[in-house]
Amino acid sequence: MESISAAGRTVVPAREARAVRLAAGQRVSVVDLEGGQVGDVFAFAAEDVAEHLSAAHTRATTSRLFPVAGEPFVTDRRRPILTLVSDTSPGRHDMLIAACDPARYARLGVTGSHPSCADNLRRALAAMGLSVPFVPQPVNVFMHIPVGEDGRLSWLAAVSRPGDAITFEAAMDCVFVLSSCPQDLVGINGSRPTSLAMDVSAPN
Amino acid sequence: MESISAAGRTVVPAREARAVRLAAGQRVSVVDLEGGQVGDVFAFAAEDVAEHLSAAHTRATTSRLFPVAGEPFVTDRRRPILTLVSDTSPGRHDMLIAACDPARYARLGVTGSHPSCADNLRRALAAMGLSVPFVPQPVNVFMHIPVGEDGRLSWLAAVSRPGDAITFEAAMDCVFVLSSCPQDLVGINGSRPTSLAMDVSAPN
Repeated sequence: MESISAAGRTVVPAREARAVRLAAGQRVSVVDLEGGQVGDVFAFAAEDVAEHLSAAHTRATTSRLFPVAGEPFVTDRRRPILTLVSDTSPGRHDMLIAACDPARYARLGVTGSHPSCADNLRRALAAMGLSVPFVPQPVNVFMHIPVGEDGRLSWLAAVSRPGDAITFEAAMDCVFVLSSCPQDLVGINGSRPTSLAMDVSAPN
Repeated sequence: MESISAAGRTVVPAREARAVRLAAGQRVSVVDLEGGQVGDVFAFAAEDVAEHLSAAHTRATTSRLFPVAGEPFVTDRRRPILTLVSDTSPGRHDMLIAACDPARYARLGVTGSHPSCADNLRRALAAMGLSVPFVPQPVNVFMHIPVGEDGRLSWLAAVSRPGDAITFEAAMDCVFVLSSCPQDLVGINGSRPTSLAMDVSAPN
């Protein structure tokens, strides 16, 4: 395995994704550079990327739709992989919705190719020489999908402001992937997709 | 591939699972024989069981936490696999929580072996000569997990009554798996796990 990623900022350009390696204890802040931009976060165990952050197992562990500060995100083997450390945004994040993919854009009427968080994930992992047999459900930071009393979901524009950041700490050595969501047919990213950044702390 | 399952009733004993093959258009009713029992439902495309019913893609398709009658459950490729036809129960079902598995019971303090919906799924598929590389998030029929205004989840006893049934129609040829949830350490199944039944209609 390659060495752990160096500390510092990685800009994730609009409609693209980047992956970084984190050692247990390292922190990563996802920063919404211009505001109003959704990020799809994926995390995989460094020792076996078949083990992945699982939304369904995280909900079962925390008994919440989304963890609060201090709570874990766990893998499909129920091991903590990330801890939610802090959040300077208004706190609207989603852990219900699948990553956008070519099938999603086809159903929205796109006839040619369109970037997607699913393809972005595959490409970012491939750049590390990694692959996974399926796309796990992401943690959609800054994605504003309120749940109504009747269980109805609304797709609203992200309310994160320029510079807002949500910070995670690695609970195990892991690969952390962030996709700047390319969705421009549903209004979740406001008027247009923009860039995000990952600020990685120095190793302990 | 084997022929489609014969129509009729398959009893799924407490703590066990059974799989049936459905042709597109066939219906299956999951019946809570004694009341108060959760069932974990999984569905896989007959032509390639890597394609599976996906809770996250279903929520994105229906914009609901759980479909209403007439709405589809879709696969990870966003193709309809089941349609919710009708429901005689009080309508409390869950599509947020992962299947119970050995790791879950270990965290609940079980030191020996304990049956689980994840192991039940693998065993039911193996009886058909099938296997899947991971356990998809199930559709937990009769499981009563209300979502509070703050996103907090409560684990309550199932309120389904003896004879209550939820009915699905296959939207494609598929393998339908039902596990009578063996959870007896958290109160979702009331005082004790009991049996369910699958009533499969004649092919069209």
